Amino acid sequence: MLDTLKEQAVRNLTSVRDQKPLVHSITNFVVMNFTANTLLAMGASPVMAHAEEEVEEMVSLAGALVLNIGTLSGPWIASMLKAGRKAAELHKPVILDPVGAGATELRTRTALEIMEAAKPSVIRGNASEILALARTGSKTKGVDSLHTVEDLGDRVEEMALNRHAVFAVTGPRDLVTDGVRTVKVGNGHPLMSTITGTGCAATVTIGAFLAVDPDPWSAAATALAFFGLAGEIGASSCHGPGSFMTAFLDALYNLTPEALAAGCRFEQP
Amino acid sequence: MLDTLKEQAVRNLTSVRDQKPLVHSITNFVVMNFTANTLLAMGASPVMAHAEEEVEEMVSLAGALVLNIGTLSGPWIASMLKAGRKAAELHKPVILDPVGAGATELRTRTALEIMEAAKPSVIRGNASEILALARTGSKTKGVDSLHTVEDLGDRVEEMALNRHAVFAVTGPRDLVTDGVRTVKVGNGHPLMSTITGTGCAATVTIGAFLAVDPDPWSAAATALAFFGLAGEIGASSCHGPGSFMTAFLDALYNLTPEALAAGCRFEQP
Amino acid sequence: MLDTLKEQAVRNLTSVRDQKPLVHSITNFVVMNFTANTLLAMGASPVMAHAEEEVEEMVSLAGALVLNIGTLSGPWIASMLKAGRKAAELHKPVILDPVGAGATELRTRTALEIMEAAKPSVIRGNASEILALARTGSKTKGVDSLHTVEDLGDRVEEMALNRHAVFAVTGPRDLVTDGVRTVKVGNGHPLMSTITGTGCAATVTIGAFLAVDPDPWSAAATALAFFGLAGEIGASSCHGPGSFMTAFLDALYNLTPEALAAGCRFEQP
Repeated sequence: MLDTLKEQAVRNLTSVRDQKPLVHSITNFVVMNFTANTLLAMGASPVMAHAEEEVEEMVSLAGALVLNIGTLSGPWIASMLKAGRKAAELHKPVILDPVGAGATELRTRTALEIMEAAKPSVIRGNASEILALARTGSKTKGVDSLHTVEDLGDRVEEMALNRHAVFAVTGPRDLVTDGVRTVKVGNGHPLMSTITGTGCAATVTIGAFLAVDPDPWSAAATALAFFGLAGEIGASSCHGPGSFMTAFLDALYNLTPEALAAGCRFEQP
Repeated sequence: MLDTLKEQAVRNLTSVRDQKPLVHSITNFVVMNFTANTLLAMGASPVMAHAEEEVEEMVSLAGALVLNIGTLSGPWIASMLKAGRKAAELHKPVILDPVGAGATELRTRTALEIMEAAKPSVIRGNASEILALARTGSKTKGVDSLHTVEDLGDRVEEMALNRHAVFAVTGPRDLVTDGVRTVKVGNGHPLMSTITGTGCAATVTIGAFLAVDPDPWSAAATALAFFGLAGEIGASSCHGPGSFMTAFLDALYNLTPEALAAGCRFEQP
Repeated sequence: MLDTLKEQAVRNLTSVRDQKPLVHSITNFVVMNFTANTLLAMGASPVMAHAEEEVEEMVSLAGALVLNIGTLSGPWIASMLKAGRKAAELHKPVILDPVGAGATELRTRTALEIMEAAKPSVIRGNASEILALARTGSKTKGVDSLHTVEDLGDRVEEMALNRHAVFAVTGPRDLVTDGVRTVKVGNGHPLMSTITGTGCAATVTIGAFLAVDPDPWSAAATALAFFGLAGEIGASSCHGPGSFMTAFLDALYNLTPEALAAGCRFEQP
């Protein structure tokens, strides 16, 4: 299985660069610029559009839809639901990033509503956010995780089975499961948590891979390996968060399929 | 004509640095930070304000108004129209960036409404966006161009005459026309399309030049030469999109009028 | 007094790194990314949330609340007032950044309303913005100051006494006063004004220090010394605004309490 994932990682990165899939994001204000640059750096094509009047048209043009609840308000929720329903209708892959779920009731409730309406193929969050979606009453501190992937136990596999979705739980070590297949991804670097929007950028990377890989489980796992490896490469030539951000975007751009095959680390759970 | 433009480029850059014109932008969320930094780096002064209650007051203080439709919604359209009408009334130059026109009906229609209400001096877009404004039914892929400047033929000159506006069509080679005078600008670098907001940043650069040059045609052409040359300089000392962004802002700041005179490339169409 | 401030600066920076306080910002679109990265780089934890439905819950989790009026609109004003009232009720420190007060009536009026509702511990602005809050009819040019700290005379001390708040007036030399105690901070570098959001980033830095220091006067003064010293360090290894931004974030991350003790410059007014 792990060797198959490695081969799929190479194929997916190559396909993203060849096909330049359009990824439609309805996302939070904080990370719009950085996530658009993340997509461009890897070779995909970002577009943002959130007006109820145009989200259906825009998602029809896209290869994947990213819904991120980081700076919610009423009109944005309505647009996310509308775009999500249209994507589901058109069988376009949707990925949900439940930023800060558990921190406020609005966020937890909205994430769950989006899961009902848009039937996302993948949900990507940190351990606290994913636990909040299980309605266990877990708490998060703002948008940072108070839990680790290990705290999730078997619960995340149950959630994946119940929701018919892939859960991608990111942290120092990432876990990706569809309930049947589970893999850990060992790539990444502590500096990635010193800049804002790393989680959101991981989400759009999965979005780009979803647009070229019909299996959301391998799309998510390979995207996180690629993303984490670029983080490692960026971290190797920087002096702090500012130069890391710069080096990270450069690494997303320069990382070859061969280097990805050599550097990706998929592990048995 | 080409030598005159070169002299005007030097005068305009010097004037922007001396006068530090206030450029009022009502623009999209993705590029607000980068376009503000673009204006500051070249020596101009950015301000963003989009509330209906204050846009007329703010535009009264400004030397130019930038309207960019990249992340539209109802209240923002109302504010753009209000600010645009006020600018027209005060004879302040307006520049329109029809981001994604052609991708959705909302964008195409709004761009055309702004053209009616604000009578922009300059419209800056890629070839697909400009073609969409001619209502020829051309399609764009999200916010990226599927057409080249060459696809436009004589149509863009007709549009300029009909609209009494300068059209600045950007791409690997830029075309600037007021319907009578047409020039191509050869400056630029492929790395410019690997970061988000380059087109929007070109638009605000034209905005700053419009605030100091009463001829919108020379303002647009000289701004694009300056902007593209800074892109070339930035690209010469970088390793990918992240370090390009950094080096590009540095180049906007450090580019002297003398270097601009030596490096700008205006060409007969 | 100056030696005491130096010791407090070391304590505050150490506490921010140890406690990683959650700073809730309701701020303008232009600077959301940069101010979040500023907080992360220094060791604090940023969160943005502006929906009326969730601001009270979010501020309850936070160590400080930042209200910044840089891109106002009706719903955001309502949320700022609601969050501010809740913070006042919970005795959480609030800091107000009256961006562009004096430029439009909406901004001046809103800043004054927030001062009534949220009883901010600290108000941080440039000299023009602070003068506008005195309703003297002073004018600003967009968001840049037309006045210096020296123009303020004794007026700012009177304002501090009347408002029971600390005023932090930033410029080439910063002034911090609670009406009784006044200090100038000599740290900083001219390159800081060549990127957007430096003032807003100074504000969130004060926010992080307010979360760990119960005296808003020393919190503000020490935060500005730390912030300005990071600017000096960043400026020492850059080639323009782009590389300055990068080096500045690196410096916020790498600046040790020892280096802060050695480099901070508090001065008698």
